[in-house]
Amino acid sequence: MTEMDWGALAQDWLDRLAQCSEPGAGVTRLPFTPEHRKALVVLTELMEQAGLRVSLDAAGTLIGRLDGPEGAPVLLMGSHQDSVREGGAYDGIMGVVLPVLALQKLRGQGATLPFAVEVLAFADEEGVRFPTALMGPRVLAGQFDMAALDMVDREGVSLRAAMQEFGLEPAALPDLGRDPAQILGWIEAHLEQGPVLENAAAPLGIVTAICGIERHSVTLTGKAAHAGTMPMALRRDALAGAAELVLAVESLAHGTEGLMSNVGTLQVRPGAVNAVPGEVTLTVELRAPSDGLREGAGASLARLAREIAKRRGLELAIERTYAQPATPCADQIIARLSQAARELGMQVPHLPSGATHDTSAIADLCPVGMLFLRCREGISHHPDEFVDTDAMSLAIDTLGQVIRGYMARA
Amino acid sequence: MTEMDWGALAQDWLDRLAQCSEPGAGVTRLPFTPEHRKALVVLTELMEQAGLRVSLDAAGTLIGRLDGPEGAPVLLMGSHQDSVREGGAYDGIMGVVLPVLALQKLRGQGATLPFAVEVLAFADEEGVRFPTALMGPRVLAGQFDMAALDMVDREGVSLRAAMQEFGLEPAALPDLGRDPAQILGWIEAHLEQGPVLENAAAPLGIVTAICGIERHSVTLTGKAAHAGTMPMALRRDALAGAAELVLAVESLAHGTEGLMSNVGTLQVRPGAVNAVPGEVTLTVELRAPSDGLREGAGASLARLAREIAKRRGLELAIERTYAQPATPCADQIIARLSQAARELGMQVPHLPSGATHDTSAIADLCPVGMLFLRCREGISHHPDEFVDTDAMSLAIDTLGQVIRGYMARA
Repeated sequence: MTEMDWGALAQDWLDRLAQCSEPGAGVTRLPFTPEHRKALVVLTELMEQAGLRVSLDAAGTLIGRLDGPEGAPVLLMGSHQDSVREGGAYDGIMGVVLPVLALQKLRGQGATLPFAVEVLAFADEEGVRFPTALMGPRVLAGQFDMAALDMVDREGVSLRAAMQEFGLEPAALPDLGRDPAQILGWIEAHLEQGPVLENAAAPLGIVTAICGIERHSVTLTGKAAHAGTMPMALRRDALAGAAELVLAVESLAHGTEGLMSNVGTLQVRPGAVNAVPGEVTLTVELRAPSDGLREGAGASLARLAREIAKRRGLELAIERTYAQPATPCADQIIARLSQAARELGMQVPHLPSGATHDTSAIADLCPVGMLFLRCREGISHHPDEFVDTDAMSLAIDTLGQVIRGYMARA
Repeated sequence: MTEMDWGALAQDWLDRLAQCSEPGAGVTRLPFTPEHRKALVVLTELMEQAGLRVSLDAAGTLIGRLDGPEGAPVLLMGSHQDSVREGGAYDGIMGVVLPVLALQKLRGQGATLPFAVEVLAFADEEGVRFPTALMGPRVLAGQFDMAALDMVDREGVSLRAAMQEFGLEPAALPDLGRDPAQILGWIEAHLEQGPVLENAAAPLGIVTAICGIERHSVTLTGKAAHAGTMPMALRRDALAGAAELVLAVESLAHGTEGLMSNVGTLQVRPGAVNAVPGEVTLTVELRAPSDGLREGAGASLARLAREIAKRRGLELAIERTYAQPATPCADQIIARLSQAARELGMQVPHLPSGATHDTSAIADLCPVGMLFLRCREGISHHPDEFVDTDAMSLAIDTLGQVIRGYMARA
């Protein structure tokens, strides 16, 4: 008998799960839909053949549980089942398949666990159907706002009605809160969604923190003028000021370890080839693994914008329109992941996550950690999303080794 | 009897002419319309009370002529009767009123001219109704392309049909060409449409040249990416490159005497707060009183764009989409205007015109010159357009003094 290729096995399951999709390019699997139901059927088969006991909680989270001794604590793993519209076959769902296979492999090696493990497949992380997300992890952490049940999708169906139609009982959500004392921790495996690991030729990465995000809307107002009759020296050109700010924001991030910035939108008014721009509105996004770093950058942004506006005789309006704190990963889980990788002979790079994950919400319940898998060309949320079987195989082994570590050092 | 206030008299006529407008804010008077007809009635009254003989040529140019001796050459003056939509009461039409009043004042002082003077009110300079303009001066210079008669307005009416409806005979246009040997020159009075004279506290200015214009479309292409997962060091941010180019273009003009530049439009794709810009398209306009200067600047623009694109790993597409040569004013007419102003006790600043005028087309026929009048806050093409009566009074005197100069030094 040849050695089982666990990465290829993961790919087989992911191929089957990718069929649980609306028609069209890539994968479209929204929560509380027939596609979601189909995925749960496949995931149930996967979990049961791995020896897990399967249940569906009131939030639509599919739970595959390997029981431990009576009263033993539980280690949580998993990710989300849903995709964006025309997304890929790995984002979320791979983080359900890999820990199930890790448990299957461990059991095949005869391991008996002194604690329980639950692999969770959350219904909705992407927030594509309803203007809310992360209900599954939030109810576990006792942080879910029941008012969100009244939110409606674009057909006018409320989240409450969609869940009831799916056979769930929203009124039971408050009962799902877990006791932190009974939770060992949470580990999520996810594709990186960026090019760092590929560039480093590393199949896996350990996440240090999920970056906090803040967004600013900046408007610079000068004076629109005829470009042929307004001398250069008398202009108050809003676009020239905005250009300085774009470069200052870029330099700020280049010069600050860990900080990421982006000017992603910029509108020019009046917007004619022969009109000196009178007003420019742009957005600035700042991300950092530490809230202090991010908030300091927000203050620097405001100072830089004021300096540019003052020097150029422009009016400035700047508003912070959004802020989301960072989620640091627990030192002990980072250490367990690093140790597991070392035991498998790997040096795994550490990196922050720029994107938000289920892990952000679970962090309110217990210590959290994330394992990133190398993806091709940093592509995600796209049919071309791809993770190679080598990376998946190593992730399965690393997750198994982390569980062995808990067995030795729980 | 008190001294006549000629500036106030000009304002009275301009007030009457401003009534020859479509309803709405400011003045809307398009060529070959009932409003054009009404303005010709008022202008005819103005010209006749000044002692001029009035006729309408086949291009719809109203001509007020003060005859000279048999066979004597003619000095041309004037501007255009039409306005933009919701424009002001001075642009163009003031350049018809002022030379008529200058002739009226001269005649009142008993002057007899050894040459003819014609004041011309061209039908269409703004090009608002039809996608062509400057027909009136072009036919005089023998430069009109008869194919333009087939162009249609937004109601589908051709220029030919509109002229015929107005009582004109387009087939006669080729007969209107003038003999350069019989033309002393052309002088146009016009509001500056910029803030230079107001800033210099000068009521009048003498134009050195009408700037040439060239326009470029520049597209910088990098790679769109997720702003949270694409590290700063690996980005190919098209907007950051475009920002450098905006500032480089501004610096180029600041550092080059006579050159004006503008980046008036800029579009960012994909244009989302959390997407690193993958592509930016912007327009660059360059204006200069010398074609060599402008073309040199166009070459510098291309070089700067290439340097930025290369350094940032962006693709560059740059295309010159429009080019119009400069029209230098004739040294002898600049000298006559300067001399006339000096004789009236004024030091009149010299400046280029960034905007195009009827003078640009007449330059193909004879030596040309322009007298600029100070306007308020540089505003034109707007209901708030304003020229004060002091400036108009001084312009009437200067035009009269130039005519006296021709009498002495024809």
